[in-house]
Amino acid sequence: MDLKVLYENISEYLSKEIILEGWIRNHRKQKEFGFIDFYDGTCFKSIQVVYDNKLSNFDFISKLRVGCAIKVVGTLSKSLGSGQDYEVVAKDVILLGDCPEDYPIQPKRHTREFLREVAYLRPRTNLFQAVFRVRSVAAYAIHNYFQQNGYVYFHAPIITASDCEGAGEMFQVTTLDLNRVNGKPDYTKDFFGKPANLTVSGQLQAETFALAYKKTYTFGPTFRAENSNTKTHASEFWMIEPEIAFCDLKGDMDIMEDMLKYVVKYVLDNCINEMKFLDQFVEKGLLDKLNKLVTSKFTRVTHEEVIKILKEAKVDFEFKPEYGEDIAKEHEKYITEYFNGPVFITDWPKDIKAFYMKLNKDGKTVAAVDLEVPGAGELMGGSQREEDYDKLVNRMKELNMPMDGMEWYLNLRKFGGCVHSGFGMGFERLLIYLTGVENIRDVIPYPRTPGNCEY
Amino acid sequence: MDLKVLYENISEYLSKEIILEGWIRNHRKQKEFGFIDFYDGTCFKSIQVVYDNKLSNFDFISKLRVGCAIKVVGTLSKSLGSGQDYEVVAKDVILLGDCPEDYPIQPKRHTREFLREVAYLRPRTNLFQAVFRVRSVAAYAIHNYFQQNGYVYFHAPIITASDCEGAGEMFQVTTLDLNRVNGKPDYTKDFFGKPANLTVSGQLQAETFALAYKKTYTFGPTFRAENSNTKTHASEFWMIEPEIAFCDLKGDMDIMEDMLKYVVKYVLDNCINEMKFLDQFVEKGLLDKLNKLVTSKFTRVTHEEVIKILKEAKVDFEFKPEYGEDIAKEHEKYITEYFNGPVFITDWPKDIKAFYMKLNKDGKTVAAVDLEVPGAGELMGGSQREEDYDKLVNRMKELNMPMDGMEWYLNLRKFGGCVHSGFGMGFERLLIYLTGVENIRDVIPYPRTPGNCEY
Repeated sequence: MDLKVLYENISEYLSKEIILEGWIRNHRKQKEFGFIDFYDGTCFKSIQVVYDNKLSNFDFISKLRVGCAIKVVGTLSKSLGSGQDYEVVAKDVILLGDCPEDYPIQPKRHTREFLREVAYLRPRTNLFQAVFRVRSVAAYAIHNYFQQNGYVYFHAPIITASDCEGAGEMFQVTTLDLNRVNGKPDYTKDFFGKPANLTVSGQLQAETFALAYKKTYTFGPTFRAENSNTKTHASEFWMIEPEIAFCDLKGDMDIMEDMLKYVVKYVLDNCINEMKFLDQFVEKGLLDKLNKLVTSKFTRVTHEEVIKILKEAKVDFEFKPEYGEDIAKEHEKYITEYFNGPVFITDWPKDIKAFYMKLNKDGKTVAAVDLEVPGAGELMGGSQREEDYDKLVNRMKELNMPMDGMEWYLNLRKFGGCVHSGFGMGFERLLIYLTGVENIRDVIPYPRTPGNCEY
Repeated sequence: MDLKVLYENISEYLSKEIILEGWIRNHRKQKEFGFIDFYDGTCFKSIQVVYDNKLSNFDFISKLRVGCAIKVVGTLSKSLGSGQDYEVVAKDVILLGDCPEDYPIQPKRHTREFLREVAYLRPRTNLFQAVFRVRSVAAYAIHNYFQQNGYVYFHAPIITASDCEGAGEMFQVTTLDLNRVNGKPDYTKDFFGKPANLTVSGQLQAETFALAYKKTYTFGPTFRAENSNTKTHASEFWMIEPEIAFCDLKGDMDIMEDMLKYVVKYVLDNCINEMKFLDQFVEKGLLDKLNKLVTSKFTRVTHEEVIKILKEAKVDFEFKPEYGEDIAKEHEKYITEYFNGPVFITDWPKDIKAFYMKLNKDGKTVAAVDLEVPGAGELMGGSQREEDYDKLVNRMKELNMPMDGMEWYLNLRKFGGCVHSGFGMGFERLLIYLTGVENIRDVIPYPRTPGNCEY
């Protein structure tokens, strides 16, 4: 049986015979007794298995090493020892899969750098058991939120021939034999008959679904071929991009706030043991931070107001805040501390934002929003989309963007277009915030970064 | 308000003023009255909006074209007309977004071929409203099934440097400037420092999670660069790949059967209007087929038994069935008809199956299974994985597979390895079965096939 099921119904099983299959996390042996710290991965908690020398294979059992796969037949009992309420008194322990002495995962603290070297084994440690279960549960929470609120899940294409987001360098996808490419690749012979790339965002395509289903969301992998080796950049990461018709920037922020609170609360409710562990060993105060977010009211201020506050601040910023310009990490930090909670910053200068964002009446700013959260900075970004065909075309011309291949996107403004908005959330950025683990390499099972493509 | 919410609580809103935002699907005008077939995409059903010439802008409203985005303010009333129980008697109809006369989506039957040409507009038609909502709901059903049964959702890497599945030709991913590649690509200068591809399967990596969490599943995009232009092949498609530790082939089949029944039932329960439409206009008998699947017991037979049955069949097969060989589409069809329901075919000849499948005691067959369903053929494939290190290495040597870069996979057999099994289901194959739509291009929002990479 699954350990999770046992723990969920533990009083039912008291004094009953149970059978468990899983692995040895730790093993203490004494002359007459042995104690196995047993886990099966179905829940964060392990259980103590006690065996004594009345068992015929006591000597064999007492030699079982950390990492071994075993089957335990025993009786669930109240534990006399400290540290646990229940334990399994073994009638038999059967070896299913051996594990050598040089097994890299030993019951001691390993550095995260070391564990990255054995990434295929790290989900067996407490830390990564917690992190990747939170990843799974948070993903489910996101689906729950959108599906229960009537959104249609949209699988945006991964391979794409358009690069209009221009959000960063792209990976090229090809079936040309590179050994035979001599200077001039013949794209008519490539798989799609033209150059193709990995998507950087599914937003533009998601808009086509918003204008058919009113409410839609993507949740899929996106890619950036940026050569940056920072703690927060990966070349392959998962994004959530909701898109809502008949919704303005205010409505967009309402959804962002509601969704984030739902997901955080869901993870707190469904991963409490994992979250307590992360609070204790990874980020002190994590639970307080998250509980506070769930109950707080998010502040909403304009970019202009933010610059004013920053300029008036009695702080010696490394970067001087300036109207019409982007804000730096230090500014984000100051602002969330200033308002003592999450802050929506709205109405950004158009020149530092994307072409599809709705131009405000002032002609200078766009109806865009960034959500800044205490301790993590920018967590989501969204905007109302320009629904006016002429304004959108003008903006694309101003930016020298090619119209070729963008007719479908423009036509959304011609064929029953309407006010619509959306936002994007990097899933790993959320996980860093939720788990307190700072490095994106530690919240993705098999991360891809420059020079790194193992497994 | 969403039309979905209105329909779910319709008696509450009777005689009350409501506000709807959405689009005109059809519009009939008479001298004194007009009837708008209104939808907003939140549910399959549309609603009739009635307006009369007492409205000051009657002439304006009566000229609104199909496709226009409108806001309707009106009173929900019992309908006097036939064809609907309720209608909205309009107090005002406001144009939000115009639509020109040459709008491609008109209230008539369009061919699917034509609609593929305007793929960004086709979700606005009844057929694709149904298909892509079923896609969304089925995806959610899959997450529900696995999450509620304690599986950890695993995001398998998309870009990979290994090609050991060998399941087909792969797309290469590169940041090399192909205009500067002269014969010999210098992969040390490529993004990952070596050649990289798009994944064909996340199974091998999922095994690392099964051996940490006991139960895991992937649900993500996979890629095949096969140059085949058939109704059932796409270059980019989504796969579900569960992997379960301490589970043999029998347990694997139990899960396959249980999961499929859950997903089909969930879609029938949650998309009943969509499914009735598909039953009526796309595949007559669709509902019967699916209801029968949910209640049927799946047959389990070995490949050898199947060949025997085929050989004894009084049918003139195009391909002669043979022990030790694969079976053809016509054989699949015969077998599901023979057993009058879904059939698990087990214990396949090892030479036509993958290297990682568990060798049976006969030394000739492997513990593999294909699920064949009536009307669709193979829907899923699974196997028990070879957990014996030496046998796995031998098999790889027999097949001349490189061991380089596969140490981690082999080590899973050394470090607490155990009996484990898994299966794969192509999501689009499931959707073809669920919707009755035969062409894979019509169940993917923006399909990628040879020479085709639009949007």
